[in-house]
Amino acid sequence: GSEVPEKQQCVEKTTQLSYADRAKLSNVHPLASKLLTIMQEKQSNLCVSADVTSSEELLQLADSLGPSICLLKTHIDILKDYAAAVGHKLQALADKHNFLIFEDRKFADIGNTVKHQYEGGLYQISSWSHIVNAHVVPGPGVVKGLCAVGKPLGRGCLLIAQMSSQGSLACGDYTNAALQMAVEQSDFVMGFICSSKICPRPEFIHMTPGVQMQAGGDVLGQQYTTPEEVIFNKGSDVIIVGRGILEAPDRLEAAELYRKMGWEAYTKRLGQSGK
Amino acid sequence: GSEVPEKQQCVEKTTQLSYADRAKLSNVHPLASKLLTIMQEKQSNLCVSADVTSSEELLQLADSLGPSICLLKTHIDILKDYAAAVGHKLQALADKHNFLIFEDRKFADIGNTVKHQYEGGLYQISSWSHIVNAHVVPGPGVVKGLCAVGKPLGRGCLLIAQMSSQGSLACGDYTNAALQMAVEQSDFVMGFICSSKICPRPEFIHMTPGVQMQAGGDVLGQQYTTPEEVIFNKGSDVIIVGRGILEAPDRLEAAELYRKMGWEAYTKRLGQSGK
Repeated sequence: GSEVPEKQQCVEKTTQLSYADRAKLSNVHPLASKLLTIMQEKQSNLCVSADVTSSEELLQLADSLGPSICLLKTHIDILKDYAAAVGHKLQALADKHNFLIFEDRKFADIGNTVKHQYEGGLYQISSWSHIVNAHVVPGPGVVKGLCAVGKPLGRGCLLIAQMSSQGSLACGDYTNAALQMAVEQSDFVMGFICSSKICPRPEFIHMTPGVQMQAGGDVLGQQYTTPEEVIFNKGSDVIIVGRGILEAPDRLEAAELYRKMGWEAYTKRLGQSGK
Repeated sequence: GSEVPEKQQCVEKTTQLSYADRAKLSNVHPLASKLLTIMQEKQSNLCVSADVTSSEELLQLADSLGPSICLLKTHIDILKDYAAAVGHKLQALADKHNFLIFEDRKFADIGNTVKHQYEGGLYQISSWSHIVNAHVVPGPGVVKGLCAVGKPLGRGCLLIAQMSSQGSLACGDYTNAALQMAVEQSDFVMGFICSSKICPRPEFIHMTPGVQMQAGGDVLGQQYTTPEEVIFNKGSDVIIVGRGILEAPDRLEAAELYRKMGWEAYTKRLGQSGK
């Protein structure tokens, strides 16, 4: 409400730079640079949220939708039949189709614990996922713990600054704290999970979940926004689409439709800024 | 700071009831009642945080420390060799030694996702863990999603209202929102993870992590408080001790020492309230 003028300014500043321009910034995280380059090359700001429970279906999805996406978002801990080979195969598919992998683990513990959760256990997330995310509620230690594991491997982290669910507490001062934490640890933090652009620095990538063709919600508090709203109006960079694609009769057709809608909203935003 | 009078009142109210008295309250969650009864019977308000990375070591710990504890806290996702049998064996040890199991998963996603994470995947947490916890940042949907899986199984949930780590954002309005969410969903929420008593209702159990003999911290932002401070001064119910026991030369001896310190602080608090 009261922050409209400042936010307006954020959007204006960044719309002057294309994804390709931002990939070349001197202070951009190497992985953010890679992702921005992929987005430009594939004309895709689409991340598919691959919320399936079978490894075979996950790999099939990654292979079939791979050409349409810049990023594949996983919840590896809902697969009923995960084995280490799944991580390797995902990596091979990411190479084949030129996308990155984002395990949506939402790390949210003290630094010492998230180190183990990121590196160890059955999933060994750090060994195969380019990007992970973290809640900022534990304070800066959560990022320090993850960074100790992920930075030497060239990994990157997104901080959850806002959430798409009803009644989320990630707003106001909480969101600002996430922003501050990102700025202070930008050697590992490459962007945000958010509902709208929250930071004017073009080196950070903004990603928005809860995207569908039509606004709406589910019975457990999820709320949906459209690609146009997210990219053009709210100034975010990446649309994260789950059920809008997974529950479509033709998933590939749906993914291509979302890719085009996301890309058009982006070019419209770029055009508006005079580039 | 400004809430001192109200908090003072909270502590006074609850110290008038023993764990045994609270176990018999008409509105207490069945699992909270069970835990309070165990605490009384074993004269233990000690929860051990079994942060080890080998299944064998976890099971050995549970068996050797079992007689001293009311609750075993696990991070199942840091075990390098988890198999379904580990869950079954933990349950058998919980029965043998009369303690409950608390998987410290810190669920923190939208309702639809946490449902899958709680029930499915390789860990099938809902099938073996009596208690889980959740961050409140996603809003009430996170509890609704977990409740849909856990309530039919007689499970219970703790909400993370405060954290022991430096710079945590779980304070002020955030903590109050956790309290409100617990009250509204008290058919599944049985208490809190917190640094001090935050709710006057005696049916809720307060548990505090980051407990050691001496105050201090680690390099990743963890901060330690003593059993006396947590139970007597802060009015919490359960001390959660990890490295204080795991890194002791004799773990069983250390656990017994913490159990006695926690229990003495509790009886001192009860005595002070005139009972």
